[in-house]
Amino acid sequence: MLFLVRMDVRIPHDLPLEQVNDIKAREKAYSQELQRDGRWQSIWRVVGEYANYSVFDVASNDELHELLQGLPLFPYMDIQVTPLARHPSAI
Amino acid sequence: MLFLVRMDVRIPHDLPLEQVNDIKAREKAYSQELQRDGRWQSIWRVVGEYANYSVFDVASNDELHELLQGLPLFPYMDIQVTPLARHPSAI
Amino acid sequence: MLFLVRMDVRIPHDLPLEQVNDIKAREKAYSQELQRDGRWQSIWRVVGEYANYSVFDVASNDELHELLQGLPLFPYMDIQVTPLARHPSAI
Amino acid sequence: MLFLVRMDVRIPHDLPLEQVNDIKAREKAYSQELQRDGRWQSIWRVVGEYANYSVFDVASNDELHELLQGLPLFPYMDIQVTPLARHPSAI
Amino acid sequence: MLFLVRMDVRIPHDLPLEQVNDIKAREKAYSQELQRDGRWQSIWRVVGEYANYSVFDVASNDELHELLQGLPLFPYMDIQVTPLARHPSAI
Amino acid sequence: MLFLVRMDVRIPHDLPLEQVNDIKAREKAYSQELQRDGRWQSIWRVVGEYANYSVFDVASNDELHELLQGLPLFPYMDIQVTPLARHPSAI
Amino acid sequence: MLFLVRMDVRIPHDLPLEQVNDIKAREKAYSQELQRDGRWQSIWRVVGEYANYSVFDVASNDELHELLQGLPLFPYMDIQVTPLARHPSAI
Amino acid sequence: MLFLVRMDVRIPHDLPLEQVNDIKAREKAYSQELQRDGRWQSIWRVVGEYANYSVFDVASNDELHELLQGLPLFPYMDIQVTPLARHPSAI
Amino acid sequence: MLFLVRMDVRIPHDLPLEQVNDIKAREKAYSQELQRDGRWQSIWRVVGEYANYSVFDVASNDELHELLQGLPLFPYMDIQVTPLARHPSAI
Amino acid sequence: MLFLVRMDVRIPHDLPLEQVNDIKAREKAYSQELQRDGRWQSIWRVVGEYANYSVFDVASNDELHELLQGLPLFPYMDIQVTPLARHPSAI
Repeated sequence: MLFLVRMDVRIPHDLPLEQVNDIKAREKAYSQELQRDGRWQSIWRVVGEYANYSVFDVASNDELHELLQGLPLFPYMDIQVTPLARHPSAI
Repeated sequence: MLFLVRMDVRIPHDLPLEQVNDIKAREKAYSQELQRDGRWQSIWRVVGEYANYSVFDVASNDELHELLQGLPLFPYMDIQVTPLARHPSAI
Repeated sequence: MLFLVRMDVRIPHDLPLEQVNDIKAREKAYSQELQRDGRWQSIWRVVGEYANYSVFDVASNDELHELLQGLPLFPYMDIQVTPLARHPSAI
Repeated sequence: MLFLVRMDVRIPHDLPLEQVNDIKAREKAYSQELQRDGRWQSIWRVVGEYANYSVFDVASNDELHELLQGLPLFPYMDIQVTPLARHPSAI
Repeated sequence: MLFLVRMDVRIPHDLPLEQVNDIKAREKAYSQELQRDGRWQSIWRVVGEYANYSVFDVASNDELHELLQGLPLFPYMDIQVTPLARHPSAI
Repeated sequence: MLFLVRMDVRIPHDLPLEQVNDIKAREKAYSQELQRDGRWQSIWRVVGEYANYSVFDVASNDELHELLQGLPLFPYMDIQVTPLARHPSAI
Repeated sequence: MLFLVRMDVRIPHDLPLEQVNDIKAREKAYSQELQRDGRWQSIWRVVGEYANYSVFDVASNDELHELLQGLPLFPYMDIQVTPLARHPSAI
Repeated sequence: MLFLVRMDVRIPHDLPLEQVNDIKAREKAYSQELQRDGRWQSIWRVVGEYANYSVFDVASNDELHELLQGLPLFPYMDIQVTPLARHPSAI
Repeated sequence: MLFLVRMDVRIPHDLPLEQVNDIKAREKAYSQELQRDGRWQSIWRVVGEYANYSVFDVASNDELHELLQGLPLFPYMDIQVTPLARHPSAI
Repeated sequence: MLFLVRMDVRIPHDLPLEQVNDIKAREKAYSQELQRDGRWQSIWRVVGEYANYSVFDVASNDELHELLQGLPLFPYMDIQVTPLARHPSAI
């Protein structure tokens, strides 16, 4: 079951740099693990913005929320979720 | 080069049904041809809406506009284009 | 799997009354059938508006889209879907 | 009398962690007490967001405001209230 | 129980004048009857707009919806309802 | 001459509590004085929000601005003013 | 007492040309009469739009609404009114 | 003096095709004449939309409005004008 | 050449009071100097808001930007500029 | 391949002045280098705002994102990118 997810990162400018770097490193590892197991199907950078569009393939709404809430950057992101269905013209 | 495209279809309710059906049939054929040649990489229905999110893979902005403008439904759609770049966490 | 759905009805004022009444009668029957089988869990009127908030319980995004697209009023509604997850404070 | 309520939590990132944890614990207890007495009928997490949709069943606007204003997280939330009425198609 | 209601009138320009005048006459009578029985407490014109702000005093959400849905202009208005509570500084 | 005024209070979370309490006490006294002299005709709490809708009865725009600017909470509020006129259906 | 008024003209494209021309001629005469008597203090075209910003000098909200409602183009305009007060830096 | 102008074309779907084609032909000629005399400095298509961004170089606001108002498509466009100034980093 | 300018002042609440008072004093002097030389034609307070609408009469976009950028409050304001043209009904 | 880019600068007011000046100096140098090599084709100041509209000429979305992400002011800007195509009326 697919969902399009947009994440806008807004890290407060007064967060210590060391903490920011640690969060980003853990975010990258977390994301790549989910990409490898197939649930984080795609991730693209939005040109010119600290934001991404991603496609997730999960079994339920609860599973998706658990994945997103577990993101190290979760407290510093605005996230919008759009449920997707099969398109009748898709081949 | 990837672009995320959202299309919202708004067909006027007083368009003759026959004309609408003809447009939709041509739209489907057009879309499937572009999917087959790899330039219309993905198309998903937005749940609950007469709308889709699509990913296009084209060589230039001009090529993308030409493809979109050629859609039989083009005069009856609101289209939003978001240019995508490679994400540093993508595997 | 639960989804909150808001439907805003916008019937064009020049649609023949007979046709409108037929659509509304079929809409009501369709809705009550889905309520009875448990997939349309709740439906409430938004006070002062020709709109409703509903909760759907379905097995997948595809199933939800199929249900919504089948609504006799579908061509005359703006629909917004919000996926819901279990809340940690829910008893 | 039913109301749909959306709550978006926005805790300032520089609030001491201990204070945040205390507020959240009291919030959970407060919410569960109201759920048990039947006035906080439902609470769902919005997938991907630190937000919930809830349904309240109260006797008056004043009672609802008192309940919401008493939330330990009240100073850190954006709250939107939609009054609901019985839908003619509800079974 | 008080509610603030904003009504924006949008009559289609191709509605026959006679029909419009009939609706407006019935709207005025309907409004004045509710004002006299105390449930439509106040009605003010928004300066420069074909719109009003009104205060209703009703016993329930259902009663308010029934009143509003009964407005002869209901099919041609956008209506927004805001539930009001007693303010702690009110004398 | 009547005006509908909406005030949304946004007190910064790092303002000292003592200062906040002092401002609120002065705000209440200021509001009640204006209610007693008839210029602050009504004040209602917006359910679920730290906000109010009020009706002011003043002789001029300048007088209204002076009253609003004098509010102890003025620096911490978003205020929207809507001029009202007599409605032709008002009894 | 001054008010800033923005008017956006939206004449339906299927209104007979003769009727449109008649409305525009009456609008111009009406506007110039009010400019001459000093109540319509200024009128400027918004560059690139079929819209104007105007300053009115009237004795009350009711007077302003009466003037605006009397505009021959009133049924075909979106109007926004902003009450103005004397600025402390004005010379 | 430069201005950035965005034009969104919205031709009603029930305008006769012949009339539409005539307007478009005159629009193109009008645009190219202004491009040749240097006042319509640039025109770009917005990818995926029936819209353009343009840069105009004119001597005054009045001149710009006159040019835009003279566009054959003017009655069928939403136009937004942004005045531009020299940027201190421009070489 | 006229421009309508709206300025919304948003001074951070933790700016030292002395600094704020100094900025405001310089802002007032700066504004009055420009009013006296005729380029800042009008300035009005928006009722209920820490904001103003102003009309500027300048020779070019560059001149207007220079004037606005020179405002002592410039770093603490949101500014919107609307170019104005002569209205055909203006007397 | 052209892109229109709008950048709104929002430097936190509590960033040390020295740091701000350093960022701005590096921003200017970076911008001018890209202007000289032809990829940052135009840059204009938006009148009255700490913002610019720019036109970039790059070979791909990835190249554009790399350029924008490299801006010393990138962490303090809101950036919007609009892909442009050749307009059929362009000469």
